[in-house]
Amino acid sequence: MAAALTAPQLIANHRPTLDQALKTIGTRAYWSPHPEHPKAYGEQGSLSPEEGRAAFDALLGTRLDLAQPGTDDWVGTETSPYGPKLGVTYPHPDVEVLLPAMRDGMRAWREAGPEVRAMVCLEILSRISARTHEFAYTVMHTTGQAFMMAFQAGGPHAQDRGLEAVAYAYAEQTRTPDTAEWTKPQGKRDPLKLEKQFTAVPRGISLLIGCNTFPTWNGYPGLFASLATGNAVLVKPHPRAVLPLALTVQVCRDVLAEAGFDANLVALAAERPGEGIAKTLAVHPEVRIIDYTGSSAFGDWLETNAHQAQVHTEKAGVNTVVIESTGNYRGMLANLAFSLSLYSGQMCTTPQNLLIPRAGIATEAGPKSFDQVVADLAAAVDSLVGDDARAAALLGALVNPDVKARLEAAPDLGEVALASREVLHPEFPEAVVRSPLIVKLDATRTDDLAACQQECFGPVSFAVAVDSATDAVELLRHTVRERGAMTVGAYTTSSEVEKAVEEVCLEECAQLSLNLTGGVFVNQTAAFSDFHGSGGNPAANAALCDGAFVANRFRVVEVRREV
Amino acid sequence: MAAALTAPQLIANHRPTLDQALKTIGTRAYWSPHPEHPKAYGEQGSLSPEEGRAAFDALLGTRLDLAQPGTDDWVGTETSPYGPKLGVTYPHPDVEVLLPAMRDGMRAWREAGPEVRAMVCLEILSRISARTHEFAYTVMHTTGQAFMMAFQAGGPHAQDRGLEAVAYAYAEQTRTPDTAEWTKPQGKRDPLKLEKQFTAVPRGISLLIGCNTFPTWNGYPGLFASLATGNAVLVKPHPRAVLPLALTVQVCRDVLAEAGFDANLVALAAERPGEGIAKTLAVHPEVRIIDYTGSSAFGDWLETNAHQAQVHTEKAGVNTVVIESTGNYRGMLANLAFSLSLYSGQMCTTPQNLLIPRAGIATEAGPKSFDQVVADLAAAVDSLVGDDARAAALLGALVNPDVKARLEAAPDLGEVALASREVLHPEFPEAVVRSPLIVKLDATRTDDLAACQQECFGPVSFAVAVDSATDAVELLRHTVRERGAMTVGAYTTSSEVEKAVEEVCLEECAQLSLNLTGGVFVNQTAAFSDFHGSGGNPAANAALCDGAFVANRFRVVEVRREV
Repeated sequence: MAAALTAPQLIANHRPTLDQALKTIGTRAYWSPHPEHPKAYGEQGSLSPEEGRAAFDALLGTRLDLAQPGTDDWVGTETSPYGPKLGVTYPHPDVEVLLPAMRDGMRAWREAGPEVRAMVCLEILSRISARTHEFAYTVMHTTGQAFMMAFQAGGPHAQDRGLEAVAYAYAEQTRTPDTAEWTKPQGKRDPLKLEKQFTAVPRGISLLIGCNTFPTWNGYPGLFASLATGNAVLVKPHPRAVLPLALTVQVCRDVLAEAGFDANLVALAAERPGEGIAKTLAVHPEVRIIDYTGSSAFGDWLETNAHQAQVHTEKAGVNTVVIESTGNYRGMLANLAFSLSLYSGQMCTTPQNLLIPRAGIATEAGPKSFDQVVADLAAAVDSLVGDDARAAALLGALVNPDVKARLEAAPDLGEVALASREVLHPEFPEAVVRSPLIVKLDATRTDDLAACQQECFGPVSFAVAVDSATDAVELLRHTVRERGAMTVGAYTTSSEVEKAVEEVCLEECAQLSLNLTGGVFVNQTAAFSDFHGSGGNPAANAALCDGAFVANRFRVVEVRREV
Repeated sequence: MAAALTAPQLIANHRPTLDQALKTIGTRAYWSPHPEHPKAYGEQGSLSPEEGRAAFDALLGTRLDLAQPGTDDWVGTETSPYGPKLGVTYPHPDVEVLLPAMRDGMRAWREAGPEVRAMVCLEILSRISARTHEFAYTVMHTTGQAFMMAFQAGGPHAQDRGLEAVAYAYAEQTRTPDTAEWTKPQGKRDPLKLEKQFTAVPRGISLLIGCNTFPTWNGYPGLFASLATGNAVLVKPHPRAVLPLALTVQVCRDVLAEAGFDANLVALAAERPGEGIAKTLAVHPEVRIIDYTGSSAFGDWLETNAHQAQVHTEKAGVNTVVIESTGNYRGMLANLAFSLSLYSGQMCTTPQNLLIPRAGIATEAGPKSFDQVVADLAAAVDSLVGDDARAAALLGALVNPDVKARLEAAPDLGEVALASREVLHPEFPEAVVRSPLIVKLDATRTDDLAACQQECFGPVSFAVAVDSATDAVELLRHTVRERGAMTVGAYTTSSEVEKAVEEVCLEECAQLSLNLTGGVFVNQTAAFSDFHGSGGNPAANAALCDGAFVANRFRVVEVRREV
């Protein structure tokens, strides 16, 4: 049977997008081919808001049969953080049947070469993009993100990160030409002549271990980087967030088959409750690449034990904002309040420790004492999430009971500057929605220092009194070095303090946002321009996305012959 | 004090060379700025053959004082494989003093940026190039290489590999611009605008663990890749091959200081006999990158235990040549004979297992039986190394007593097709020089198969009888997968066999040379064009040189500000 999607067709459709992505990762200017506005969808084959909702509803209670080889059971226990059980079941793999089947298609996939592989990946992304509204609901009801965030971060932003990975993968594979003529002069004798062929070859099977909070955003970079470099990809979703990645796998399999490749190049590994299949898969000799987002404990375990694989991890960290002075006090408070509230602080990039000199800070509206700054920030948060409907649309729901437990324990850590309150979700009364908690700590007290040096994932932040800006900078350094950080923020009008914070970030390898007072937030990064994580501190051993993220997913094999 | 070497001066001198290197790693055509002929040296500031010899002689019996901080002893026990003791002593480090001192200069080195760092590296390489004749003797008298090989492989070829690494490092660091303006449209509202700065930051201290046989060739890629990406580099040479790397460190320190940087960015860690300092350094928290060439046992240990570091290893492998048929029988025999003899088979790239169908092979001169092929190859080797003077110039000396012991035990493994003989070195009668041994094995016998599946490093090769070309290809696959291989060779006039061998090399990730009958040998690779190793089989986890070799030696830190 001839492939329904031919290479020339795919190239005609997607090469311009790849070229623009390649250009943009060089300039790092703003660009995205994936619309951020919900109303941009519904034409040219994409699902409208209503169609997306209906498609999601139609999935509930069904068996998602991916026609995978080695399926020995059907599993699925997802419950929406907003209340309803999803009731979707997924194939459970017999790994010793599935993995060999995944290898079968790798030769043809390798022989397709970097361009065709990139085009197939872009076709997958464009099909996912057309179903953004449907994916948005799957993300919302597995992560607890509010709809708009699930739509944007789980849709266009995740697709951007996937496309970015494809662009890096393509660029890396095509740095070496397919062929070369090599002629070495030999003085008066005939020159030595060789003809050389260079082929990018995959490492093997790549394992994606998905997370609960951002299954697509954190999953797509590794998935597409590995697929674009010729590997097969086994997707092991978080048991609470299977559906967004299972649908992704389905689209991948459909497109691969239509383009004439083996659908088993991408497969799903759903698991039974408590099975811990990731641990088994991670050390399987066929698994040669791992992408993981989740706890530091398991991330460290992977880095220590999965020697047969290239391991990319994003783990826990402690994000700091140094607040030393500002020329836009209201703007700073509003910006921070939003950052603390968005998705109830359940982002790996949400600030946790706000370091503020105990003598207070200088602002354009005069000096503000430590207590005043904290009270004003509390008021800013309170006004942002005071109304239940507005709060619910910003906070989303707590993703799991662990977050709730941590939130409930946190007031014991210090003086509560802003209490967390229960928010009644207007549409989903069962959802556990809580406003952010702010606790005051003092960096000179041992217990307080210990408290703020642990990640307290969720809507909890610490306003930490420090003796001076210098102490803030040193505490920042210590925190990044020992605990890691996905983000660092700082507010200062002093060029000296700015320089000191920058130097710490350069030395300890952390991404820094300075004096954000408008519509960009420290916890958000844009694909093609911002790096997500640095890969150089304990919070993550890789960054999204750079050359290092893709370069070791394939190898180049050279065949040389005399001419 | 103003720096004696200014950035503009360095750029004027070396930027054209860097540009040509950058271009060549893209085309992979032939190029080298480092002359291969001994007579090309002696003008424009480079040492003539006589001056190089005199410079080497002047080093013997001296203390090489590098003025390193934390020097607590003077050590050195090198004896030339050609007989004489070198008598050179080197600083022994107190690691807890030296490592912090090495960090001191890293900020200025980082701030210099990728271009200036590349220029400083090229200045170092050009100073080393000018002393090629001196380095040649240091390599000869630590490795046992014959002079011409020590000169070429230890001189220009090693310098090429260093320059290649600098080019990759520069290219990788400059993929991301220094700054970017990011403007995101917001419909009718003002666009979001950010100004972004991107800085390549080093990982920390890079540890080079040198090898006995190719201290410069195998050492320069890691040394220069790490230095060019902003790291400090601690060089831990093999105790039998300190001098070539100690001199290299001295040149690095001189140039760094002259260019206004801290000399301690590059330092030497020589050790006492049996001290095993590499094991201590490899897991030191300050050591963030490791480059290693040597035994599989220690390489595997590094990969398993040095979790705090990016580990690049080149270990042992078993190299195979499949001999199925040829259209140039004499050319094949001559080419193989040279490959087996060069430096007494003490190259990680030397073929070990020659797989030959027991029914014989087809040639342009008619069919040749298995025994005939082996006898003809033995005769070709014998004629190449029959004369002592000529033999010595090709074989060099055995690098250490282990090689001699293995060679002496190998005749017990099977029927000897060509006995190894003692060669009297005309200039160094104390040198242990031995001609290659060829032993016949049969792949269908369990003991024989086991024998050829171990690396037998040195002048030992196995002519292995196989039932068919298909069996040869399957044994090749098994060998590469289980034991690893730096090189694979094949001789065949059958497009089917050629395709099968290629496919195994693509699937098992090994570098393949086909039908070499002239002046290029399977055990030689050229910088800028050939990859050394694949990084994808058990013989090595990295290739020289590609993006993956440099991409994770630095990270990019972004600082973003509102405009």
